[in-house]
Amino acid sequence: MMAILGENRYGKAEVRVVHVDRGQQPHAIRDFNVSVSLAGDMLQTHLSGANDQVLPTDTQKNTVYALAQRLGGVEPEVLALALARHFVEGRPGITRARVQVDSYGWTSVGPHSLVRSGGEVRTVTVVHDEQSGSWVLGGLRELTLLNTTDSEFRGFARDEYTTLAETTDRMLATSVEARWRFRTADCDWAAAHQRARQALIQAFADTYSHSLQQSLYAMGSRVLAEAPELCEVRLALPNKHHFLVDLSPFGLPNDNEVYLAADRPYGLIEGQLLAEDAADAGPAWS
Amino acid sequence: MMAILGENRYGKAEVRVVHVDRGQQPHAIRDFNVSVSLAGDMLQTHLSGANDQVLPTDTQKNTVYALAQRLGGVEPEVLALALARHFVEGRPGITRARVQVDSYGWTSVGPHSLVRSGGEVRTVTVVHDEQSGSWVLGGLRELTLLNTTDSEFRGFARDEYTTLAETTDRMLATSVEARWRFRTADCDWAAAHQRARQALIQAFADTYSHSLQQSLYAMGSRVLAEAPELCEVRLALPNKHHFLVDLSPFGLPNDNEVYLAADRPYGLIEGQLLAEDAADAGPAWS
Amino acid sequence: MMAILGENRYGKAEVRVVHVDRGQQPHAIRDFNVSVSLAGDMLQTHLSGANDQVLPTDTQKNTVYALAQRLGGVEPEVLALALARHFVEGRPGITRARVQVDSYGWTSVGPHSLVRSGGEVRTVTVVHDEQSGSWVLGGLRELTLLNTTDSEFRGFARDEYTTLAETTDRMLATSVEARWRFRTADCDWAAAHQRARQALIQAFADTYSHSLQQSLYAMGSRVLAEAPELCEVRLALPNKHHFLVDLSPFGLPNDNEVYLAADRPYGLIEGQLLAEDAADAGPAWS
Amino acid sequence: MMAILGENRYGKAEVRVVHVDRGQQPHAIRDFNVSVSLAGDMLQTHLSGANDQVLPTDTQKNTVYALAQRLGGVEPEVLALALARHFVEGRPGITRARVQVDSYGWTSVGPHSLVRSGGEVRTVTVVHDEQSGSWVLGGLRELTLLNTTDSEFRGFARDEYTTLAETTDRMLATSVEARWRFRTADCDWAAAHQRARQALIQAFADTYSHSLQQSLYAMGSRVLAEAPELCEVRLALPNKHHFLVDLSPFGLPNDNEVYLAADRPYGLIEGQLLAEDAADAGPAWS
Repeated sequence: MMAILGENRYGKAEVRVVHVDRGQQPHAIRDFNVSVSLAGDMLQTHLSGANDQVLPTDTQKNTVYALAQRLGGVEPEVLALALARHFVEGRPGITRARVQVDSYGWTSVGPHSLVRSGGEVRTVTVVHDEQSGSWVLGGLRELTLLNTTDSEFRGFARDEYTTLAETTDRMLATSVEARWRFRTADCDWAAAHQRARQALIQAFADTYSHSLQQSLYAMGSRVLAEAPELCEVRLALPNKHHFLVDLSPFGLPNDNEVYLAADRPYGLIEGQLLAEDAADAGPAWS
Repeated sequence: MMAILGENRYGKAEVRVVHVDRGQQPHAIRDFNVSVSLAGDMLQTHLSGANDQVLPTDTQKNTVYALAQRLGGVEPEVLALALARHFVEGRPGITRARVQVDSYGWTSVGPHSLVRSGGEVRTVTVVHDEQSGSWVLGGLRELTLLNTTDSEFRGFARDEYTTLAETTDRMLATSVEARWRFRTADCDWAAAHQRARQALIQAFADTYSHSLQQSLYAMGSRVLAEAPELCEVRLALPNKHHFLVDLSPFGLPNDNEVYLAADRPYGLIEGQLLAEDAADAGPAWS
Repeated sequence: MMAILGENRYGKAEVRVVHVDRGQQPHAIRDFNVSVSLAGDMLQTHLSGANDQVLPTDTQKNTVYALAQRLGGVEPEVLALALARHFVEGRPGITRARVQVDSYGWTSVGPHSLVRSGGEVRTVTVVHDEQSGSWVLGGLRELTLLNTTDSEFRGFARDEYTTLAETTDRMLATSVEARWRFRTADCDWAAAHQRARQALIQAFADTYSHSLQQSLYAMGSRVLAEAPELCEVRLALPNKHHFLVDLSPFGLPNDNEVYLAADRPYGLIEGQLLAEDAADAGPAWS
Repeated sequence: MMAILGENRYGKAEVRVVHVDRGQQPHAIRDFNVSVSLAGDMLQTHLSGANDQVLPTDTQKNTVYALAQRLGGVEPEVLALALARHFVEGRPGITRARVQVDSYGWTSVGPHSLVRSGGEVRTVTVVHDEQSGSWVLGGLRELTLLNTTDSEFRGFARDEYTTLAETTDRMLATSVEARWRFRTADCDWAAAHQRARQALIQAFADTYSHSLQQSLYAMGSRVLAEAPELCEVRLALPNKHHFLVDLSPFGLPNDNEVYLAADRPYGLIEGQLLAEDAADAGPAWS
């Protein structure tokens, strides 16, 4: 029995490119991690190893560097769009390209000196399809948020394995992974990112939370409200548990003061929010 | 404008449970990392924080431990199936459960002493759906393979950014991430896993490779041939580049002898193989 | 032949404790990772398993939580000193305690809401010795710095394996790991940390660098100059190489614009600086 | 006040080199991660950036590759010794070199095909000093061991923060980090490593443990007994806690059957064992 080749793609992952713009004062840098993935009719290379339709992943890497030079210090969405279109438009055999760009932040501390801003990563995914054109996803990950109060969890379902006590005042912490879909492939990318990010933080801080699901909905809908360029948001929010330590064996009080920050297991809440008029997502999330 | 809640789920991730069977000689252990994710009509908790349909993720964790005791030292597929069915069948509000189990290997070195076998992880994903029943995916990750020869890469497409030289003899290394779909939810799980794993290794070793795509196809189709319990395989194969070091500046030869093992960037080849008679995958991969 | 027991110690590592001070507006938190290590005459437990002189590491963990409550929202140095003294003064068998506290930064974004500040970690090590008293080391790690220019590397030694070209204008980046020794165990800890950290950044930015060693010396001596509470600094500076990409095969210029950020290998420069009047370090670094 | 330069060194870290010996059947590989660190009179480069005594870390990297070719598929100790001596003997300014080699294991599965053996790493550190000659340390890390029984912990010291219950039957697991000092710089390295490793495993398995300290002593002294080439062993043994899960709320027994594998905090037991006739360690551990 013959095996049928289904979906497939290939590319170069994690091309680390840094662009310096010395024309600005202070010097500006873009610090990107770029991954390219191409799809098309690749049946022959799978069956026989014929490579005449295979653009080497080494060439893809070179292209990242070359376009970074040609484009200069652009927003990550601009580089991703240019790369994805380059591969599809440049080669008949490639019908779809996906380009992901992780972007790391830096803060100037002198005319040519910078400090890494921290763990948070801005993310971009562009899919360019021969038929349906360009699709842009923005997002971020490792944005860690914490509320010291205004969170409760009670009135939940119970079964024979439920031992959790209800609480009307708990600490709530999460490390946000968010991705959002742009309505178009042309936008003030930096401004939109900034507004979406700020909406996440502000909605998390403002919401009196009865569950992390409720916070998730508040965060996602705030993003859509503040960034009309967007029509969809997907959030994955780990519940980074902070357990109140029982100090009573030592005769000590613990009035929501001393917590154990746990690693594993953790809750994980995932949800998708759509604007009422969101168009079909096409291959955006593929 | 109101935001619409789309797909959503919630659960407890990375419950680390170890089961010891002292009834066997030598003592046998199961070392699992279990993640549960539940879906159903969760609109109210997102909108208002009403939690009466929310089974706490803490309860899910307890259930993992309780079923680990009830079932004893079973294959990971058995635990995952039992858990997924428990959640869907036990609660009207839950329409689908996904349970993932990572499994770590140990080797006995005495009647009650074991050594961790290494980095390779056996993976299981079970989806149990109220409508369509149980779906089982097996797999593995971090199985690192290397061929010192019998790999070439030439005759590839070229464009203005291509500088790669053709090679008729290169080192080929990858860290296999494989997932496969079982035809049914009842099987000799351990035997099937062993045959699929062995097929991956053997096909990688046996294939004279013109491209990693060709090796991928050979590996996937060998799995389907050797494990008729399976109807689909998905593989992600990073090309862990080993570059021949240029020693000519030092007057030294390097006849495929000394290599630089690179970290990033790396090639990434992804592909799906299907048996000719594979049924529809339903929610198996969701 | 009998094996002789040499140096030994035991303790609990990585106790994750978060303290919330709701008395302040906005709420203030301390996010610590505490490791305790105790030493004394432990020969009997090693030889025969007699545990009457062994304070369980579980007890050490409890003590971290209890003292976090008793002390409230203090600087990490204060908690570390209190813990180290508690163990040595409280138990005759313990002659030396080492307590390490990693501290993670948070920024307020609301009356009870905070955002993790990033990857940088503030470090504290306290050694309290029955004989010589308390010794305090501060420091930080994962402070990532980059100069886009004002760095050169030339005039270096050469041998038969040297191929590196001289450069008069390179990018210089490092991830600072710094530890410094306080002269006394009583100090304005927060202010000293802030001045030492600022001195590292400022000296890195200000120095026209002929080698990373020169930058290291400038950074360390600036710390000693700006923070007279300190008498010693130890620095480990990885040279996070950024290589200029050769775009000439594509007919493109690269005037210090597009760089490849490499992972491995990396340079590693380590050095110790001492104030002229630095006292002996005793067991501070043990 | 002038800052005094104390101890300092510089080098290239994590040079990833793979050597293939096609002359053997099956093909044999050596998979190493090499770090070099050099010391000498480096005052001028620190003060003024004068680099005429600085051998570039890039040259050190080249030297690793060149010597890997010259020596062929040797034990990691042989490569480390050759490198360390090369740097000290080749350059008057360098008075001490430290070379560390991590070695990863592979298992043949065909004439030119191999599988990575797992997470365990064999470690080597060579210090070559202009005055005192060569010093060799071997070792390993990430050797994970587990006893399902024959471990207790009771009769321990108690204070006001002790809540731990005594146990006469617990699971004991650790991830061994071991380093050992060779008496000479000439030895059957592979055989000695194999015997030392086997002694660790066997002593862990054989020892009825009253404390992890006791297991540590048993393991270290067994290494010295089985490998007379060695005169010192240092062990760091994390106590990877496995807590028995309380299933009584669910009416279920748990007769040492279901355990929670915890991440943090963990116990950490460190100790040094010396042969009675061990010579002074000189700069071996520096």
